[in-house]
Amino acid sequence: MGCRQSFKQCCDRPKNTNVRISLPAVCFVWQIAMIILFGIFIRYDQESDAHWTEYRKFRNISSDIENDFYFRYPSFQDVHVMIFVGFGFLMTFLKRYSFSAVGFNFLIAAFGLQWALLMQGWFQSLDPMDGKIKISMESLINADFCVASCLIAYGAVLGKLSPVQLMVMTLFGITLYAVEEFIILNLIHARDAGGSMVIHTFGAYYGLSISWMLYRPNLDQSKRLNGSVYHSDVFAMIGTLFLWMFWPSFNSAVTDHGDGQHRAAINTYLALASTVLTTVAISSLSQKTGKLDMVHIQNSTLAGGVAVGTAAEFMLMPYGSLIIGFCCGIISTLGYIYITPFMEKYLKIQDTCGIHNLHAMPGVIGGIVGAVTAAAASEGKLDKNAAAMKSAQFICFQLCCILRMPIWGDASDDNCFDDELYWELPEDEESIPPILEDNNHMRNRDV
Amino acid sequence: MGCRQSFKQCCDRPKNTNVRISLPAVCFVWQIAMIILFGIFIRYDQESDAHWTEYRKFRNISSDIENDFYFRYPSFQDVHVMIFVGFGFLMTFLKRYSFSAVGFNFLIAAFGLQWALLMQGWFQSLDPMDGKIKISMESLINADFCVASCLIAYGAVLGKLSPVQLMVMTLFGITLYAVEEFIILNLIHARDAGGSMVIHTFGAYYGLSISWMLYRPNLDQSKRLNGSVYHSDVFAMIGTLFLWMFWPSFNSAVTDHGDGQHRAAINTYLALASTVLTTVAISSLSQKTGKLDMVHIQNSTLAGGVAVGTAAEFMLMPYGSLIIGFCCGIISTLGYIYITPFMEKYLKIQDTCGIHNLHAMPGVIGGIVGAVTAAAASEGKLDKNAAAMKSAQFICFQLCCILRMPIWGDASDDNCFDDELYWELPEDEESIPPILEDNNHMRNRDV
Amino acid sequence: MGCRQSFKQCCDRPKNTNVRISLPAVCFVWQIAMIILFGIFIRYDQESDAHWTEYRKFRNISSDIENDFYFRYPSFQDVHVMIFVGFGFLMTFLKRYSFSAVGFNFLIAAFGLQWALLMQGWFQSLDPMDGKIKISMESLINADFCVASCLIAYGAVLGKLSPVQLMVMTLFGITLYAVEEFIILNLIHARDAGGSMVIHTFGAYYGLSISWMLYRPNLDQSKRLNGSVYHSDVFAMIGTLFLWMFWPSFNSAVTDHGDGQHRAAINTYLALASTVLTTVAISSLSQKTGKLDMVHIQNSTLAGGVAVGTAAEFMLMPYGSLIIGFCCGIISTLGYIYITPFMEKYLKIQDTCGIHNLHAMPGVIGGIVGAVTAAAASEGKLDKNAAAMKSAQFICFQLCCILRMPIWGDASDDNCFDDELYWELPEDEESIPPILEDNNHMRNRDV
Repeated sequence: MGCRQSFKQCCDRPKNTNVRISLPAVCFVWQIAMIILFGIFIRYDQESDAHWTEYRKFRNISSDIENDFYFRYPSFQDVHVMIFVGFGFLMTFLKRYSFSAVGFNFLIAAFGLQWALLMQGWFQSLDPMDGKIKISMESLINADFCVASCLIAYGAVLGKLSPVQLMVMTLFGITLYAVEEFIILNLIHARDAGGSMVIHTFGAYYGLSISWMLYRPNLDQSKRLNGSVYHSDVFAMIGTLFLWMFWPSFNSAVTDHGDGQHRAAINTYLALASTVLTTVAISSLSQKTGKLDMVHIQNSTLAGGVAVGTAAEFMLMPYGSLIIGFCCGIISTLGYIYITPFMEKYLKIQDTCGIHNLHAMPGVIGGIVGAVTAAAASEGKLDKNAAAMKSAQFICFQLCCILRMPIWGDASDDNCFDDELYWELPEDEESIPPILEDNNHMRNRDV
Repeated sequence: MGCRQSFKQCCDRPKNTNVRISLPAVCFVWQIAMIILFGIFIRYDQESDAHWTEYRKFRNISSDIENDFYFRYPSFQDVHVMIFVGFGFLMTFLKRYSFSAVGFNFLIAAFGLQWALLMQGWFQSLDPMDGKIKISMESLINADFCVASCLIAYGAVLGKLSPVQLMVMTLFGITLYAVEEFIILNLIHARDAGGSMVIHTFGAYYGLSISWMLYRPNLDQSKRLNGSVYHSDVFAMIGTLFLWMFWPSFNSAVTDHGDGQHRAAINTYLALASTVLTTVAISSLSQKTGKLDMVHIQNSTLAGGVAVGTAAEFMLMPYGSLIIGFCCGIISTLGYIYITPFMEKYLKIQDTCGIHNLHAMPGVIGGIVGAVTAAAASEGKLDKNAAAMKSAQFICFQLCCILRMPIWGDASDDNCFDDELYWELPEDEESIPPILEDNNHMRNRDV
Repeated sequence: MGCRQSFKQCCDRPKNTNVRISLPAVCFVWQIAMIILFGIFIRYDQESDAHWTEYRKFRNISSDIENDFYFRYPSFQDVHVMIFVGFGFLMTFLKRYSFSAVGFNFLIAAFGLQWALLMQGWFQSLDPMDGKIKISMESLINADFCVASCLIAYGAVLGKLSPVQLMVMTLFGITLYAVEEFIILNLIHARDAGGSMVIHTFGAYYGLSISWMLYRPNLDQSKRLNGSVYHSDVFAMIGTLFLWMFWPSFNSAVTDHGDGQHRAAINTYLALASTVLTTVAISSLSQKTGKLDMVHIQNSTLAGGVAVGTAAEFMLMPYGSLIIGFCCGIISTLGYIYITPFMEKYLKIQDTCGIHNLHAMPGVIGGIVGAVTAAAASEGKLDKNAAAMKSAQFICFQLCCILRMPIWGDASDDNCFDDELYWELPEDEESIPPILEDNNHMRNRDV
């Protein structure tokens, strides 16, 4: 809190958004560090090692098709598409921030997955015999999951952070994620295959904490750019649909072989279908003339997938999935209509993509549903979860003090949401901003 | 027919396109009905139930990899992409109807797949022991197939129906589909793995019947919007390509395990490749200067996949597939050039996406090829198929009388193809229509 | 060389870009030839033939899941997406050549894969018993690989060749590919699962040779069109990401079952992640203000996948993959900054997409890494490779003399990169060129 105020003045000066030293430095140094750490710690596991044949004899497995690769690879590729195309394109909706949406999403995911392989390995699969982390397809899926939580957080600060800050945010985010995941899955022994709590709730509150710490009181000065144009909304639908379609793979990717994966995919498919209808209903109700709002369709239709994550592998029953989706479509859309403006005005949390409505609330619902469905062993889970959240919040506080240092090249309040700062733009778009600005001034005068 | 005329006058009044009551009401009530019906009827089948382990012992299966999930899931996900991204983006070609194309496609597919699970279950897989429908991955694929037929129908009426009418059209369409599928597959015992007849021909004639019943004599008044812009055509190519690439999965998704799936994928791959070349040839021939027409490339290149559907699993031979593709590329492209304008002018059928050329004709060809290839048991199939089509047409007649009631919020003839009616639009596009309209008026004056 | 000069004058005349006779003729005749050749030569192999059941008994296989279809099909579909959406959309970055980028990519891939099935079959899998080629899923993947090399070559000549010339280029390219592949894989017995040398280096030098032969001294006259607009760059990112995400499938699609596929996917995943960071670093360093260049992000981020191709199936170690990606991101981005302008100015090679940086250099690196990793049997490989390259260059020479004949309908220097020539365009874009041209004239005057 003190941190938040003490840096207030630096926000008022025009900022230097040159990242020519800091961005290459961070990329090079961290990538070299990854290479060294991978050299020390990371090896193939038995199923991806050339000794697979011996391993099979030892385990008495008769066929190559028993390699875990064939159980997991199709799901892995679907999850991979969600991370890079799904999250990347979902955030292209801003009229002049599409390059950064898809480009920085790409950058932080590519770094994050390497760091995640290390962090998750140290916490969960360090081989006591030789001190190595043995990776396989399942490790890659878990790394992608871990990255998802940071991309969710990116949604809250979209348009307001420089790429260097995003890298720092990702470094801390992945670290926190590994700690939190270890507590929930290995200490509390909760199951959370689709990551309602572990991925979505964590990622959302991590991003909202950062957004709160980096509150920009004069963000209105960029409001001319904080909106969509027709085709940027169509691009965003590419993201929405790939997330929506592949969510059954997301929730079933690391569940038990056989009926576990089968059931998780069915439940997720049904929950998502149900969400679409209630999202459309509430979105239409919210407008005087019954028109639909693209923001709701792009985001709230996904809430069912988030909420069914924890329980997807359980015997939730098909109608149970439909009910979860039904509720989450309503809650998430109402969140966009009422809670996001409330949070911005009274809690000083600026949430560009509305991740509170898409990930935080449905994630909490999912955790509760999962706890109820699992029945056994769920006692105390939510308390400790809350504790983990609190410690996360503490580290966020430290992180934000770091992030607010005036060396990262972030934008000033009046040129947020602008690709111009970090990208060479083609000519057609360089000529747009003055016109838009004029329009905006005129509109302001009218108001 | 009487119905068609008696409602004529209501078309001439400016229409009320407010769907604020009807759309949320339909979404809520139908979704709640789905939950109740799923609660009563739908359960997991043995392979997605947690009792899988016992089931395996009973069936003497040695490994989780034998779960039908691993035979079907990759194909399922490809089909799912075809339904939501393929059909959705294929219809984004209109300059100002992209939101509705991809958004309403999303809505009706999400509802349709739930209703399809119920309808197909009642007709084909109701367990006589406990009166329940047991679903698995194959049920989900079949539900997606069923939905495909309604999305095909949507193509004929694109831009002319309100979302509420589309929901009604989907409810009836899925119902008819289940009846027709039951007749063809279970009574006639025809095989139609890729659905040339069951999905494509049915869907196309269903859509064309509706379009005929809802004929708009003054649709020319919207012609300023019934066309593409440069980037909307590129968006549509996303749809085309995902349909084209994943069609081998579509035609092989529910065929027999092993060589059946293998062969169906190969045949479809080859038929589609062949179609591309003849489509390009005819498209280029049709223009004085040999230029290609995007409409043909976006649509006719897919005709081979439709036509090879029925026979894909048979021993069609690779050259057989190429021949089918060869013919369909020609017929479908000629359809766009000659038959679509003919149908609009003389048969009063307005077919926005040209589904008659992409689905109806190739579907019939596919049914014939399948019958010839299968040789046995095909006798009488086409007669009864025609009967099914006739009964479908009768129900369509009833449906259209319903659809023409002036309560559904559909557009008047001069503002069809306009997202404005049902979507909150970003500013850039709200300023376009008057300019376009002016241009149009001027052009009209010149003419 | 003589050929190059003797045709010089024909370039200065305004060209006739009418392809109304030549394009349909080529499409029809070649497709009919394919049908005949398929009829004579191509049959299903045992695993896609209906006799699979007997085959299984013979091989003592217990389950349908052992069909190679289930080992390969998910990878095949990913590769298929790379070919049509990946390569197609990667080339949509030009402001007015998106139709041709994605449309001609579609056409030449659809023809190429048929011709590749024949050529690769004749060279590698002709059954000595009955003189037939037996195809399966693996043949389809190899055909897609073969097509990839021609699409890489298309990148060098993008915007400068007519569709008929592209078809001729593909016919020769596939033929050369089959020869070169036979030499490298079957005579030298090198392994190159991901095709660093076989696909990427070959494809790139093939394309560059053609571009060199067809050098356009006055290409500057089209420079108003040789650039991107904002949304065309976002479309291109769709191509980039689908290539990037599915590259693990590309490199693992035809490797050994089991741990071979598993390891190839892991290595490729890691190499690509590493490449993204160094690409961003160099791109940012190359601009005075540290801004990123979309050209680098769209292309160089993929270099790691190219380079790790040959060695991906070996025991390269995770850190080895990261090192390869690290180096290739740097080299490829520097190539865009320094080598592409150098090649255009001094070597007279105009490389529209910069395939030398994305495919040629990383491909060579990949071949060397593979040779070093494989250790055994690599002796002499590079020499003979060079010989193959030389013979390729010779055939290219003949080809280019053919390609330069003034009958193919290619553009003159001042209207390259223009969809207008070969496509019916919607109205919005037909009105743009004069304005752009005006701008351009004014800019020229200022300079």
